[in-house]
Amino acid sequence: MTLDIDWLDSRRIVQAPMAGAGGVDLAIAALRGGAVGSLPCALLAPDAAMAQAAAVRAGAEGPLNLNFFCHAMPPAPDESAWHALLAPYFAEYAVTPPAVPPPLRLPFDDAMCATVEKIRPEIVSFHFGLPDEALCARVRAAGARILSSATSVAEARWLAARGVDGVIAQGYEAGGHAGRFLPAPPGTQMGLFALLPQIADAVELPVIAAGGIGDARGIAAGFALGARAVQIGTAYLPCPESLASAAHRALLGGEAASATRFTNLITGGAARGLANRLIEDLGPIHPDAPAFPYAASALAPLRAAAEAQGRSDFTSMWAGQAAPLGRPEPAEALTRRLAALALAAAL
Amino acid sequence: MTLDIDWLDSRRIVQAPMAGAGGVDLAIAALRGGAVGSLPCALLAPDAAMAQAAAVRAGAEGPLNLNFFCHAMPPAPDESAWHALLAPYFAEYAVTPPAVPPPLRLPFDDAMCATVEKIRPEIVSFHFGLPDEALCARVRAAGARILSSATSVAEARWLAARGVDGVIAQGYEAGGHAGRFLPAPPGTQMGLFALLPQIADAVELPVIAAGGIGDARGIAAGFALGARAVQIGTAYLPCPESLASAAHRALLGGEAASATRFTNLITGGAARGLANRLIEDLGPIHPDAPAFPYAASALAPLRAAAEAQGRSDFTSMWAGQAAPLGRPEPAEALTRRLAALALAAAL
Repeated sequence: MTLDIDWLDSRRIVQAPMAGAGGVDLAIAALRGGAVGSLPCALLAPDAAMAQAAAVRAGAEGPLNLNFFCHAMPPAPDESAWHALLAPYFAEYAVTPPAVPPPLRLPFDDAMCATVEKIRPEIVSFHFGLPDEALCARVRAAGARILSSATSVAEARWLAARGVDGVIAQGYEAGGHAGRFLPAPPGTQMGLFALLPQIADAVELPVIAAGGIGDARGIAAGFALGARAVQIGTAYLPCPESLASAAHRALLGGEAASATRFTNLITGGAARGLANRLIEDLGPIHPDAPAFPYAASALAPLRAAAEAQGRSDFTSMWAGQAAPLGRPEPAEALTRRLAALALAAAL
Repeated sequence: MTLDIDWLDSRRIVQAPMAGAGGVDLAIAALRGGAVGSLPCALLAPDAAMAQAAAVRAGAEGPLNLNFFCHAMPPAPDESAWHALLAPYFAEYAVTPPAVPPPLRLPFDDAMCATVEKIRPEIVSFHFGLPDEALCARVRAAGARILSSATSVAEARWLAARGVDGVIAQGYEAGGHAGRFLPAPPGTQMGLFALLPQIADAVELPVIAAGGIGDARGIAAGFALGARAVQIGTAYLPCPESLASAAHRALLGGEAASATRFTNLITGGAARGLANRLIEDLGPIHPDAPAFPYAASALAPLRAAAEAQGRSDFTSMWAGQAAPLGRPEPAEALTRRLAALALAAAL
């Protein structure tokens, strides 16, 4: 493999964007530790993204990555079966499905692109493919490198053909939403061990390994398998700077961390995380959950009501399979420790 | 982690036993290349195991591993739904379900243990846990080290508590039967990237990495993640010494190799492989497939009839997710090449 682009060499750890759990403080701490700092923007309005990016810039030097979802929005589905399935919970919590749906995860669009043009981040990463070429061109013209996730060799080739600057090889082990965007038979998600070298062979671009990397051993292994950098998410969840809830943190430190699963109940898309009551009751995958991102709408009032009681019955608690390797530690120190140990392992 | 046992140091590659595809020639070639050579014995009667081991001993020096299944045999299930599901195929191929069931995969027992006592292999590896302690004691007394597969940290601890000499950390990526033997929620199979360091932390024993290792990069990554050796299976399938069919080899060299899946249709147990007609028709997992190992019985006449026509409609074609990394090469040369490249990567 010829490597034409060396832009990731100085920052070999990318702190993963994690919508809901990442934010300004975590990005600042990761940047101060020497990593690429990421802001998850999938759940933000443009003005909020603008404000958060400004806060990160004020708090730390270094390469900032803004992450967006760029899924195709399917037509609004019939949610009657989903609402019927949730009816006992609506009764228990004395709430009703929202008459006006709350804001959904919306794909990257013109307004957000205009915000990127103002922020001028060093990197923009996408999940679920890429936005249309006009938007990509504007992101590039604003000075950002473009990354996107691939869960298969076919997706990596698709991204490379559209001019991305690097490919995030996202293994089956990764917490949160699987970035799969090309049709593939069910059950064919690939573990990072097999996926990473195949993507490294398939594209002449820097490959960033993601999924299941929990400590310096994983970083060294990622490099051995052909990665130029690694993206680490779950290991940052126990950090004081993450926005993970107390319940989420408690589960990450216990037996539950060994049993993460893909579920479609939270958003409609397959995402790996810890079980909550809904997942335990209905099983992690249910055919009545509306397509991504619509499943989240009906859950919103349930989630709010449960959280007001200190419960995580309907709350997403994303985590990858390396969760048991994590431990509470300030994110800057964690980043420096991982980098030093990985460097030592590589020498 | 303290490492008390250094017995795997001289043979860091274990040629994986692969029932159906491995055999005498492959074990001899792997041994000549410097690997641990393995004979899959799960489908053999004791006299056949005896004869094959003698043939390997006559052909090559070095550590021989005999592999056995040691599943608990469930009571014979009601197969009427399974036979009904297969009825169109019985009609098409003009065969009938066997009146007398053909021999099934039987667990390691007294007769096979007596054979092990005669063969005196250096290693005996088990799949699906361990046989009872009396049989294990006899295997040990015959001079063999005992290995078994773990698909979770809990299974690794279970094996360590029962005195195994090493644990095979079998990732989700592995071809063939998943060795899972302790109850666990569906969907919690672990990718090797996350599984391996967690098992290495949990047991003070040599850990052998298995699943998704297709070339020297994978070997180096396995060592980085805490393995003392690696078990490689799928990469040996294209070798001239393997018993993989022409159809199996052809699929390994094409697009199908990128879409391996777990199926329960071939034996009733979850095993990863390439799709055949049955899997395409019914979907890879079907609730009417009888429990392991019973599903194989009704398929036997269909498989034989189809294979007589040169078709693989009902034939198992196991393969792991690293299958696309493989290429046809004599097994001795492959072993030497992988070892040399992995050594170079580690220096």
